[in-house]
Amino acid sequence: MGSGYHVAVVGATGAVGQEMLAVLQKRRFPVRTLTLLASPRSKGKRLRYGEEQLAVEVLTKDAFKGVEIALFSAGGSRAKEFAPAAVSAGAVVVDNSSAFRMEAGVPLVVPEINPETIRQHQGIIANPNCSTIAMVVPLYPLHKAFGVKRVVVCTYQAASGAGAAAMEELKAETLAQLEGRPYQRTIFPQQYAFNLFPHNSPLLEDGYCEEEVKMVRETHKIMGDSSIRINATCVRVPVLRAHSEALNIEFQREVAPAAAYDVLRRAPGIEIHEDRAANRWATPVDGSGQDPVLVGRIRTDRSQPNTLDLWLVSDQLLKGAALNAVQIAELL
Amino acid sequence: MGSGYHVAVVGATGAVGQEMLAVLQKRRFPVRTLTLLASPRSKGKRLRYGEEQLAVEVLTKDAFKGVEIALFSAGGSRAKEFAPAAVSAGAVVVDNSSAFRMEAGVPLVVPEINPETIRQHQGIIANPNCSTIAMVVPLYPLHKAFGVKRVVVCTYQAASGAGAAAMEELKAETLAQLEGRPYQRTIFPQQYAFNLFPHNSPLLEDGYCEEEVKMVRETHKIMGDSSIRINATCVRVPVLRAHSEALNIEFQREVAPAAAYDVLRRAPGIEIHEDRAANRWATPVDGSGQDPVLVGRIRTDRSQPNTLDLWLVSDQLLKGAALNAVQIAELL
Repeated sequence: MGSGYHVAVVGATGAVGQEMLAVLQKRRFPVRTLTLLASPRSKGKRLRYGEEQLAVEVLTKDAFKGVEIALFSAGGSRAKEFAPAAVSAGAVVVDNSSAFRMEAGVPLVVPEINPETIRQHQGIIANPNCSTIAMVVPLYPLHKAFGVKRVVVCTYQAASGAGAAAMEELKAETLAQLEGRPYQRTIFPQQYAFNLFPHNSPLLEDGYCEEEVKMVRETHKIMGDSSIRINATCVRVPVLRAHSEALNIEFQREVAPAAAYDVLRRAPGIEIHEDRAANRWATPVDGSGQDPVLVGRIRTDRSQPNTLDLWLVSDQLLKGAALNAVQIAELL
Repeated sequence: MGSGYHVAVVGATGAVGQEMLAVLQKRRFPVRTLTLLASPRSKGKRLRYGEEQLAVEVLTKDAFKGVEIALFSAGGSRAKEFAPAAVSAGAVVVDNSSAFRMEAGVPLVVPEINPETIRQHQGIIANPNCSTIAMVVPLYPLHKAFGVKRVVVCTYQAASGAGAAAMEELKAETLAQLEGRPYQRTIFPQQYAFNLFPHNSPLLEDGYCEEEVKMVRETHKIMGDSSIRINATCVRVPVLRAHSEALNIEFQREVAPAAAYDVLRRAPGIEIHEDRAANRWATPVDGSGQDPVLVGRIRTDRSQPNTLDLWLVSDQLLKGAALNAVQIAELL
C-alpha cells in the first residue's frame, strides 16, 4: 500500500467482501490504509491483500476513524446501523445492500450508465441489486438508441447471490444427495441440489417477491426513466456463481438484431459472447470471474416484430457487486 | 397380463420407455401381451413388468406382428424408420419423437385438450414435446375462458429431457466437479454441472432453436388456434427431472388472478401447488413423479394490466412423455 485513500471493507470475510479485496488489487485502486471489518464471529481472522496479511477487526461505530471510503457489503440491517457512523466519521459509504437504494439523496449508480448522479451524494452511494445491474448494462444503451417500451425478464440466479455460505451449502447438499446421505440445510428453505425455486426474498401483497420489484424500481432510478415497463420472474438455480437472464425487450419501433449488436459492441461493460455457428452461448461458467456482462442470442421475437430476445450472463460477485462498488469508488 | 391389447414399447430401456412400463401398470392399462423393443445394444436385457421379467427384443421391421398399440420412444430417426412398419403390421403408433408431429393427418394430442382429433389418425398419433405439453395444459383452459393474445415463456429444463444417460452424466460430472477430478462428457456439448445453457437443439436461421419453435408450432396445432402469439426461450438447467416454466400471458382483457385460479382449479391435469403464506412454490423436486402439471404464482403483471404471470412444474418423463402417451393409448 502506498499513497491514496484510507479504505474500509465492511463485511470483508463474505463472498462479496473477498471479491472487493481482489478487485481493489487488480484495478490498482490507490489504497493508503485498508481496514477490514466484519462481525465478531470473524474476529482474529486474517485476510490476504497483496503481500500482506491483514487482521479482521470487529465492526463497531467507532471503527471508521480516518476512513475516507467505506465499501459496505454486510447486509441491509448492518448498513442501516453502521453506515451513518461511517459518514459521521467523514467517510463516503458505497453500500451494496438494498437499505438505502431507493432513498432520495442516495445516488444508485452503475458507472457505465449514470456516473454523473454520484455528485449528489450526501455521504452514501448505493450499489444496485446484482440482477438489476446485469440487466441495465445492456438495456441502457439499447434504450438510448431505440427507446425501450417494455421488458419481460426471467432470471437464472446463482447461489453466490446468497453469499459464500450459500455456495458451500449448495455444494455440500449436492454431495450428500449424490452419496445418498441426508443433509441438514441452514440457509435455503428447500432443496437446492439438482433443484430450483422462485427467489425466496419476501413476498409482496401482489405476489411479486422483493428481488423482482428491485429489478423494476432500481432500473427506473438508474436509467432515470420510469416509463419503461418491466416484468420480472426471479428464480434461483443450482449454479454456483454468475447470474443468467433472458430478456424480451419491446422497442418503440422495429430494431434489427444487427443494429442491436452494433450498439452493444460499442457500449461499455459488455462483451458479445457467442458462437452462433456452434450454437454456443454464454453460460455461468463462462461468466464467472469476468468483468463484463456477457451478451448474445439476440433475435427478433417471432410473436412481435418490434421486440428482441437477448441472453446475458454476469458474474454476480463482480459486476453484480464488488466490481461495480469499486468502480463507484474510482469515480469518487 | 390378462385380456386386453398386444402393446409394444419401442425404446423400452430408455428413460421414457421405463416410465411407460410403470405408467401402463399404475393405470392398469389392459395389456394382453407386452413386447419390449430396443436397439441391439439392449439385446438380452430383461425388464420388470409387474411380477414378470420380460426379455428386451431387437427392434426390427418384423418385430410388430400382432401388435395393436406401439408406444414409440426411440427418437426421430428410428420412428421414421420403424413406425411405418408397425402401422403396416396393423398397429396404431403413439410416437413420442418430433418426427411426425407437424405432419398433416397425424393428430398431435394432449388428452385434456384435443382428444377428439385422435379419430383422424391414419396409423400414427404424435405425442407433443415435453415443454409444450407442460405449457398447454394450463394455457388451454385459460385461453378458452379469457382469450390469450400472447405468451412469453422461459423454460428451466431438466436433464431427463435428454434421456437416462444424460441424467447419469449430470450426476457423474457433478461428482467429479465436487471432487476436483476432470470428467469426459459424452452427451452434452458443454459443462452442465453447476452450470446451465440455452437449449442445444439445432439452431434455425432466425436464431431460435428447434425446441423453442416446437413450443410455438405444436401449441398452435394442439390448441387448434394459430392466432396466439408465442415467444420462447429454452434453457437447460442442472436439475435431474421435471421441467419448470415461467409464463407471461397477455389476455384479450384484464383477468384477475383469482379468476385464473378458479379456471385452473376446475381444469383437468392440473394441481394448484403453492403455499403463498410460506412463500413456497412448486419446484422440480415437488413435481418429480407427479402426474399433474403443478401450477401457481399467478400474479398480475406490473407492466401490463391485461397480463398474468404463472409458474409451473411438470414431470418431463410423465406428463411430458410417458403418461401423455399412455393417456392417448387409453383414448384408443
